[in-house]
Amino acid sequence: MFTISLANEGDGQSILGIAARSGVFTSDEVACVQELWEAYLRDGEASGYVFLVYKGEDGQALAFLCFGPTPLTEGTFDLYWVCVAPEARGRGIASVMLTRMELEVAQRGGRLILVETSSLAAYAAARGLYESRGYQREAVVHDFYSPGDDLVILQKHLGGGHAEAPASAPVTDALPSAS
Amino acid sequence: MFTISLANEGDGQSILGIAARSGVFTSDEVACVQELWEAYLRDGEASGYVFLVYKGEDGQALAFLCFGPTPLTEGTFDLYWVCVAPEARGRGIASVMLTRMELEVAQRGGRLILVETSSLAAYAAARGLYESRGYQREAVVHDFYSPGDDLVILQKHLGGGHAEAPASAPVTDALPSAS
Repeated sequence: MFTISLANEGDGQSILGIAARSGVFTSDEVACVQELWEAYLRDGEASGYVFLVYKGEDGQALAFLCFGPTPLTEGTFDLYWVCVAPEARGRGIASVMLTRMELEVAQRGGRLILVETSSLAAYAAARGLYESRGYQREAVVHDFYSPGDDLVILQKHLGGGHAEAPASAPVTDALPSAS
Repeated sequence: MFTISLANEGDGQSILGIAARSGVFTSDEVACVQELWEAYLRDGEASGYVFLVYKGEDGQALAFLCFGPTPLTEGTFDLYWVCVAPEARGRGIASVMLTRMELEVAQRGGRLILVETSSLAAYAAARGLYESRGYQREAVVHDFYSPGDDLVILQKHLGGGHAEAPASAPVTDALPSAS
């Protein structure tokens, strides 16, 4: 059994530890995770950030996800990060975290989820995960992160898929068997 | 004569007043201008925001512009707002503000400027201004602000235009005749 829940104060050290040893965050990005975490602890969801934490059978945190409403939009949410501890990869944890986030977004009236990622080869696995979960490439900003490193924006419309999808398209994902 | 300069504490009331009576900012957006202005006053450029103010002959503020480095990028900057007081429109003030911003960005090592705007008809004049100043449509995120209201991202590469431009393309804009 595993649990996915809204993170609370006691999860901070685990979350920052997972970010630091993930191997995919630069030190600037780890600092950014810490900044958003502190805002979430201080102001709750009014901070604009929500953290979910995944814990294994023994209660140890193995992954976190951060999302929030996109400022100045109606019903658009950003997925900021989903990060799984190195020792827990390959078990589909990121995928169930995404499903749980989609449920949380829908409960908050969200209709559109955006993910910003990089075009670099190092992020190919991440892009593949998002695409396998129904996120579609929406836009590219060339040379965004640095020359040759583009911003790729993926999107997923909740509640029946993209507006152009046929009426018979599968609706939102089933709930994962986790609380 | 006019001046364009980095804004300081005494300009705050004018800047927020211009935003409030511009007719183009929602109350949420005015609150957002105020939040960024307070961050800029408190932390200076470490806030991530820089405000420029345009003053007419009599020293009265007639326009402001806010830009800053895009977090987690190398050399990319965002133009957040350029806003001219209603009584001062039609004089080309926004255009000289953009030119001044490009100089400030170049001085800070910037190579790419992004502008996020809306696809709605109300923003057609703004998009036309940007396009006339060499900003090109780079990406669209459909239904971003609300259903039917898309995000349009415009870009301008500094220092000779876009990488695909011919070598004979005009280089960066001349300095406006203002300090």
